[in-house]
Amino acid sequence: MGTASYAQSDSIMLRNISDEVMLHGTCYENLRYLCKKIGNRLSGTPQAARAVTWGEKAMTEAGADKVWLQPVDVPFWIRGQEKLAFRYRGEKSFKEVNVLAIGNTVGTDNKLLEAPVVLVKDIEEFKNLPDDAVKGKIIFFNYRFRQDLVNTFEGYGDAGRYRWLAPNMAAARGAAAVIIRSVSTGVDDQPHTGSMRYADTVKPIPAVAIGNTTADILEKKCKEGAVSAQMQSNCHMAGTVRSYNVIGEITGSEHPETYITVGGHLDSWDVGEGAMDDGAGCVQTIEIVRTMKALGIRPKHTIRAVLFMNEENGLKGGLAYADSARAHNEKHMIAIETDAGGFSPRGFGLDMKESKKETIRSYRHLFLPYGVYDFEHDEGGADISPLHRMGVPVAGLLPDPQRYFDLHHTRADVFENINHRELKLCAVSLTGLVYLVDKYGLGHIDPLSDTPINSNVPHSLKKTN
Amino acid sequence: MGTASYAQSDSIMLRNISDEVMLHGTCYENLRYLCKKIGNRLSGTPQAARAVTWGEKAMTEAGADKVWLQPVDVPFWIRGQEKLAFRYRGEKSFKEVNVLAIGNTVGTDNKLLEAPVVLVKDIEEFKNLPDDAVKGKIIFFNYRFRQDLVNTFEGYGDAGRYRWLAPNMAAARGAAAVIIRSVSTGVDDQPHTGSMRYADTVKPIPAVAIGNTTADILEKKCKEGAVSAQMQSNCHMAGTVRSYNVIGEITGSEHPETYITVGGHLDSWDVGEGAMDDGAGCVQTIEIVRTMKALGIRPKHTIRAVLFMNEENGLKGGLAYADSARAHNEKHMIAIETDAGGFSPRGFGLDMKESKKETIRSYRHLFLPYGVYDFEHDEGGADISPLHRMGVPVAGLLPDPQRYFDLHHTRADVFENINHRELKLCAVSLTGLVYLVDKYGLGHIDPLSDTPINSNVPHSLKKTN
Repeated sequence: MGTASYAQSDSIMLRNISDEVMLHGTCYENLRYLCKKIGNRLSGTPQAARAVTWGEKAMTEAGADKVWLQPVDVPFWIRGQEKLAFRYRGEKSFKEVNVLAIGNTVGTDNKLLEAPVVLVKDIEEFKNLPDDAVKGKIIFFNYRFRQDLVNTFEGYGDAGRYRWLAPNMAAARGAAAVIIRSVSTGVDDQPHTGSMRYADTVKPIPAVAIGNTTADILEKKCKEGAVSAQMQSNCHMAGTVRSYNVIGEITGSEHPETYITVGGHLDSWDVGEGAMDDGAGCVQTIEIVRTMKALGIRPKHTIRAVLFMNEENGLKGGLAYADSARAHNEKHMIAIETDAGGFSPRGFGLDMKESKKETIRSYRHLFLPYGVYDFEHDEGGADISPLHRMGVPVAGLLPDPQRYFDLHHTRADVFENINHRELKLCAVSLTGLVYLVDKYGLGHIDPLSDTPINSNVPHSLKKTN
Repeated sequence: MGTASYAQSDSIMLRNISDEVMLHGTCYENLRYLCKKIGNRLSGTPQAARAVTWGEKAMTEAGADKVWLQPVDVPFWIRGQEKLAFRYRGEKSFKEVNVLAIGNTVGTDNKLLEAPVVLVKDIEEFKNLPDDAVKGKIIFFNYRFRQDLVNTFEGYGDAGRYRWLAPNMAAARGAAAVIIRSVSTGVDDQPHTGSMRYADTVKPIPAVAIGNTTADILEKKCKEGAVSAQMQSNCHMAGTVRSYNVIGEITGSEHPETYITVGGHLDSWDVGEGAMDDGAGCVQTIEIVRTMKALGIRPKHTIRAVLFMNEENGLKGGLAYADSARAHNEKHMIAIETDAGGFSPRGFGLDMKESKKETIRSYRHLFLPYGVYDFEHDEGGADISPLHRMGVPVAGLLPDPQRYFDLHHTRADVFENINHRELKLCAVSLTGLVYLVDKYGLGHIDPLSDTPINSNVPHSLKKTN
């Protein structure tokens, strides 16, 4: 087979994959079921257990050669009831606001905690507070998500620190509690929850998040005069629960002992429906299996489609998967994660040797008709980070990032905010990458890689009926 | 100034434009006002008149040197009441369904029209119908939007023909009325309205659209047995109304007599809020003026920001603008349209001489940090098509097209379906293009255009605070 026909066969295969997913894909209806019939599914909850059962069934129906559950012991955090109210200068009564405790935090043991609120705009300002402005106070970290950063994941890296650092820094100095401005790009009042962990050296204090609208008001009121807060909550850790990663395999025809892992995470936060985080990644992962089977693609290497448990507040699923890979001395060619929302795909993050990146970049012209052009970032994904630390090359799907942090870890992360075509195009790109990596490995440069960039589908491949 | 510093200054200017829009842009709040306080605004309606007043004010507040209204006489179509119901085989009564008359069509004069429904899947099948299967019947054109086409605008070009052709073809053969499956990618029951025009040779018949869900049911029922429809409506054309294009100018400092036109259209269909079609384009157009003024950019050529009237059902605004340009012998360097939704931008369609395309493509590396990489399509825009026929080079913003035809011309085209960051990024790209075209003209190739494609913001330009 000559160079041109080689490349054309790949181009046609990607087109077949796209047609199969866009016309017959089940991922959108799978997502509807997961969101509407199961709902949110924090690790340890009955819904998470139902999601495991559902995932096993869906993976089987997709046609995986082998499906099994990999045991994972996960932490179980319970939100319970929560309340936050402010009394501004000159007002007599406390007014309740929209609030979400940060995940894994302690509450007030259901007691009423009342204390003055101290506003700081960032960590620097907090560090400069005198001790008596911290001790016994409720510190309000009002750090803003940087809307000027076009890549919102950069903004998340920046503002997201506050969810972890603020409670620990305030606890270390004797604060009574912490309120953070949500790590949010939203023009709304949605509070965003998310993970944190107390350092062993501090006595845990309650930590909650408020939405941008409430944060704006609180900032203004704090600047005008004294503000008091009342906080009452009973969130707490409730031990460990046995759960599972769901794994589906298509056994390799030539090198079954070499693995290509691709996956998203099955757990979600305990609000909304975990639609984009990461229901989308799960149903795309299942769609890869379904599509390869529907098209009769027989991979040379074994494809492992994994729905990881407990990405959100412990990463126990990713750790268990890597531990098992190490224990069985498994050879992993690459691990690919989809956990950045089910929006229109734009690229793949690549974290691997430069020569391997070049292999994947040489397929750029094959991906371009599907809107995928960006191979310059280095995101993989949290669930596959333990594998990566063992030396496995990793890649992460990069959907359009603009909407993600409006919805992330909120009540608004629901099915209705995912578009069926965007979701499916993600599955197209993922299946395409799995197909190409399986076919050529990571040491191959596509002979047509220097084809001028052209986002049109090659004319000869356009369907006319 | 050397080559490198030249290019760096452009890169910095695009960064400044982005920061200005993302941090201080008013387009999202302008869109909120237009959608929520004025609402949909079909040509000729009082809301369209209010939108003109609003547009003039917003353009003035944005800082345009000169703002005026250009008279346009527009057709006025009135939907009135409409009803469609089906009686399926074995059922006694008619059941109403969700329906929208196609724009510019005639109704039933409020009389009850009852006739058998004849299903055809496409034009070919219609042509093969015997005459007695057409005459006096209600023909149901069940042509599906091709979900396999990644670029939904290609699918629109394909399925959109039915809105124009079906009523005319059926009328020519004596059908009583036409029902079309909506020109829609939606997984829902939204009917999509839109424009059509009867040929002079036919006697107009009513033509309506139903949503995908209803179309699926109707198809099934037609295949099972005889289906009758009842139709009642009073839509009609109601003469001509005086309206206006809203025009804002930033006067050129060196060549004020040469124009760069950029715009969207102010009118919308009479359902929903006309948020993405084309409120988004209008507020982006205003944002360009505001941003250039806020940054103190003094263009060499005169920038004309235009809110066109009557794109949807007559194009009278675009025609009036071009007529005026011809009458005044105006010199137009380029016209740029934004009328493809306020979603995350991906590129610009370019319809101009190849050498001029190459000029714009040579700025690819400047646009890439903002997600804009695709300069290979040739869409301009309807409003600027009359200018284009006079020889003016045209360009059209290409936002991500996946969601567009779920919402297009429906009740669901509302403010909530536009994301603030995506909307603003469109304004960033448009302002960037206006800036570069003004600065260099269309005969210049950027000396750094062969910089390897890299979607990261150049490190030296990243802000660290």
